[in-house]
Amino acid sequence: MSALFLRTLREDPADAELPGHRLLVRAGYLRRAAPGAFTWLPLGKLLLDRITAVVREELAAIGGQEVSFPALLPREPYEVSGRWTDYGPDIFRLRDRRGADYLLAPTHEEVFTTLVRDVYASYRDYPLILFQVQTKFRDEPRPRGGVLRGREFLMKDSYSFDLDDAGLAAAYAKHREAYTRIFDRLGVDHLVVSAFSGAMGGSASEEFQAPSPAGEDRLVSCPACGYAANIEAVTTPAPVGTVPAAPSPSLVDTPDAGSIEALVATLNADAAGGRTDWTAADTLKNVVVVVTPPGGPAELLVIGVPGDREVDLTRVETAVHPAVVALLDDFTGHPELVRGYLGPRNLSHRYLVDPRVAPGTAWVTGANTKDLHELNVVCGRDFTPDGTIEAADVRPGDPCPRCGTGLDLVRGIEIGHIFQLGRRYAEAFGLTATGPDGEPITITMGSYGIGISRLVGVLAEKCRDEHGLCWPPEVAPFDVQLIATGTGDQLDVALDLGAQLSARGRHVLVDDRRHTSAGVKFTDAELIGIPRIVVVGRRLSEGYVELRDRSTGARRDVHIASLVDIVG
Amino acid sequence: MSALFLRTLREDPADAELPGHRLLVRAGYLRRAAPGAFTWLPLGKLLLDRITAVVREELAAIGGQEVSFPALLPREPYEVSGRWTDYGPDIFRLRDRRGADYLLAPTHEEVFTTLVRDVYASYRDYPLILFQVQTKFRDEPRPRGGVLRGREFLMKDSYSFDLDDAGLAAAYAKHREAYTRIFDRLGVDHLVVSAFSGAMGGSASEEFQAPSPAGEDRLVSCPACGYAANIEAVTTPAPVGTVPAAPSPSLVDTPDAGSIEALVATLNADAAGGRTDWTAADTLKNVVVVVTPPGGPAELLVIGVPGDREVDLTRVETAVHPAVVALLDDFTGHPELVRGYLGPRNLSHRYLVDPRVAPGTAWVTGANTKDLHELNVVCGRDFTPDGTIEAADVRPGDPCPRCGTGLDLVRGIEIGHIFQLGRRYAEAFGLTATGPDGEPITITMGSYGIGISRLVGVLAEKCRDEHGLCWPPEVAPFDVQLIATGTGDQLDVALDLGAQLSARGRHVLVDDRRHTSAGVKFTDAELIGIPRIVVVGRRLSEGYVELRDRSTGARRDVHIASLVDIVG
Repeated sequence: MSALFLRTLREDPADAELPGHRLLVRAGYLRRAAPGAFTWLPLGKLLLDRITAVVREELAAIGGQEVSFPALLPREPYEVSGRWTDYGPDIFRLRDRRGADYLLAPTHEEVFTTLVRDVYASYRDYPLILFQVQTKFRDEPRPRGGVLRGREFLMKDSYSFDLDDAGLAAAYAKHREAYTRIFDRLGVDHLVVSAFSGAMGGSASEEFQAPSPAGEDRLVSCPACGYAANIEAVTTPAPVGTVPAAPSPSLVDTPDAGSIEALVATLNADAAGGRTDWTAADTLKNVVVVVTPPGGPAELLVIGVPGDREVDLTRVETAVHPAVVALLDDFTGHPELVRGYLGPRNLSHRYLVDPRVAPGTAWVTGANTKDLHELNVVCGRDFTPDGTIEAADVRPGDPCPRCGTGLDLVRGIEIGHIFQLGRRYAEAFGLTATGPDGEPITITMGSYGIGISRLVGVLAEKCRDEHGLCWPPEVAPFDVQLIATGTGDQLDVALDLGAQLSARGRHVLVDDRRHTSAGVKFTDAELIGIPRIVVVGRRLSEGYVELRDRSTGARRDVHIASLVDIVG
Repeated sequence: MSALFLRTLREDPADAELPGHRLLVRAGYLRRAAPGAFTWLPLGKLLLDRITAVVREELAAIGGQEVSFPALLPREPYEVSGRWTDYGPDIFRLRDRRGADYLLAPTHEEVFTTLVRDVYASYRDYPLILFQVQTKFRDEPRPRGGVLRGREFLMKDSYSFDLDDAGLAAAYAKHREAYTRIFDRLGVDHLVVSAFSGAMGGSASEEFQAPSPAGEDRLVSCPACGYAANIEAVTTPAPVGTVPAAPSPSLVDTPDAGSIEALVATLNADAAGGRTDWTAADTLKNVVVVVTPPGGPAELLVIGVPGDREVDLTRVETAVHPAVVALLDDFTGHPELVRGYLGPRNLSHRYLVDPRVAPGTAWVTGANTKDLHELNVVCGRDFTPDGTIEAADVRPGDPCPRCGTGLDLVRGIEIGHIFQLGRRYAEAFGLTATGPDGEPITITMGSYGIGISRLVGVLAEKCRDEHGLCWPPEVAPFDVQLIATGTGDQLDVALDLGAQLSARGRHVLVDDRRHTSAGVKFTDAELIGIPRIVVVGRRLSEGYVELRDRSTGARRDVHIASLVDIVG
């Protein structure tokens, strides 16, 4: 401790918003170096290395072979896959001195595919799993939460290569199990949720999510059947059963009823259609958004959702990926769009509806004329949408798409992501194997990521108390911290015990600071969070030291002669 | 081997110019991914990790503590140090989505200085050595030699922080010794040579150079006193003793004698000054160069060297660093510069001379008039240069600046560089410690680098024969390779011996390929270069296997019962 490059802070750093991140900074694990970029100090580097070692071991255990690609890659392969454009402003791009375009690659599907194509040839060569542990870069619009969402971070990315769908399914299952083992070993609680696969393309995809109030992702889980999904991937069951036939549409006067709330009040006040029990769920709300694909041009899209739901732009953006989405703010120049009175009939723009707006369902909706709505507008009879879209917000209690039970809603931090890519990249880059009959077989691929530096943030948010951090033994930067109190023999004994424990292969930190009070040493030890603390203090003269467990707070006196056997 | 991601190549790759690099590609250690950027395949990654482990161990042994900084850093600190400009086009720069300037940092002096400033405060905190192992990026104009000079490479950079010059000298000496141990352990021959410190600033600086015909650096070494230097840093001793007084300058007609060769011929033919023994060494050649500092503007500089020497632009560029230098090609617009007849008298441009052009020395030189030269032009009497410059080429046999013995000239590959930076960065960033008297002490720093990925290239150029690579045991990706020949029990025995050796902690590669001939297995083993090869072959029935040493080629039969003890 007297030589360790570490000065703990008593005050919370100004730029740290999350409690775990504040502790990482205060305890000297890391420091902010730039927006979304952190410097790992010696304690943090040890922690990161231990997490990385666990990830490496489990990847090797499923037959993964480690390679290492450049981070700075030329534009061309990403142009072939389409991702140069699809990533939009989310990646860092640069030009070299000759003016050639490069990117700091966010993931490496393109170049792994071409590598395997250039090295392997025969069906006998497969299956194959390759991985790397690499610093990645993303130009996050809003870096936040310390290492939870940075612009430069450490990631394990692996890729599987198989001859057929069964092989891909097996590689995917191996990764799913390896990830479970990794997170179990690290002591990270996790949910496996269905995911939208984003810019990766491909079919099946699941995320490993650590439930945490600090999480940015919103998840649903079903308490009955175990279904779990990222809110972006939740599907809405269409209404079941037959809908009673409705009368023909009829116009109703609805002055100043441009909001759903005002509309429902007006309908009930006027007993429209002979009813006074109208609710927002009876109305069809039509929302105009601007959809801008990478490279443009922007298009208008009208989305119809039941009036008791909001349009969730994150879900819309997922549905139209890689385009970006914004609400239409300025209706100038669009006289056909009557704000507050928009209806689905005779719309001149693309129109998509929530799955609840199913054929045969009847709605109160705008008549595309100011101060007028229509009753009994039936989907499929009076209007035909261009398709459905998962656009409505998801709420606790919404029915599980698998079993119908009410869903729970939680926040999570994405710690792993596994994808069945299929043949998209193999087709784009010509990765085939010569089969037993001499015919080419297009390879099917998977891609699998773990955010290693993010895991430090996840653990810090979870493994802490009011005094500081409490690392799980599997990842702690040291196994034991020895504290010498007083200025007599205690220091020599602490150093001697430390040497004995080191000889047994334990990683030991001895607080040998001579000008530091015992109180400060205790406070620092609790802040740093080494799992076991040995205090060489006042009972030394009787031959005893105190052994503390950082997590449970349990303390007991141990005879000095047996300490090494107990802790070693 | 049957599962290893490796296919050896029989043919040399088209894009590899050096023999060691060709073998690295053919043996499946690495592949080119982009200009100056390489993908490390599983064998190469193992090798790189072993080299890295040696570097880490020796840095830890001198008290170095490992940290990890971002590679992508904001412009501001590099603006403060001046290196944003000084590096010119040699670094990669980019803008983030908000338009802020970033660079991929080539080294990290600036941010290490600010980190220590932010963490440490008292003189009691020092000394300190920090290091990191990091992927670095440089926009090399001419990436070449495979991993010898890449645009993305792995480097260890460390930094020392001390209170006084004696402390810096001690940290520098520790690094010098650690580097020697590292290169000795890795089996890399090396010279420690005086160096010019380039963009780093600072005072003392030495390079560790691996002598190699593949090297880009030119070095001198003295066979007598051990002096060694990069050619860029060689100093020329000024002539000693008194020079006899020369008569006054006199003009001589020298029509069509614009070259030194023609001038000497003309002087001797005409018995100029009554002599017919004129040589090029009697003449003073004046060369005009354009010096462009980063950000400009360009300036003309005239350099005077003895006529038997060439101007070495690399040495000139080192002397005027960070400016770039080119010969003046086009004399249009400079009537004062009479090409072929330039002389030092009444020059209207900055004029620097080689140290051999010492005060009192007399020269034949141009008269700044076409077809005219002057005899007996004496430095300090007839002209006064603006200073001296190390601009003349260095040749084998030139006198050692320390002892006067004739120097040897060799080529080398820079594998390490150690700098005494002094207080330049501490002053720029305000890094001080509070002294015992409460007064601030400005910290003095050193910076020290090892090119880890480059070492792979250095070893490959050295450790090879006509059959392939031969790794030193300390870095080989595996300790032992077992080859089963034939299709009987050999494979089972090889796998069993491999398992026994693995259990003893040896790293073992078993060639278990069933459809591969013994000949191909031998060829591949020699290409890959694992130090010890065990052949489980035809004498298995008698209880013997063959043990081969890859480097020496020695072979002996070993009883199967004793193999594990011999190799394990």
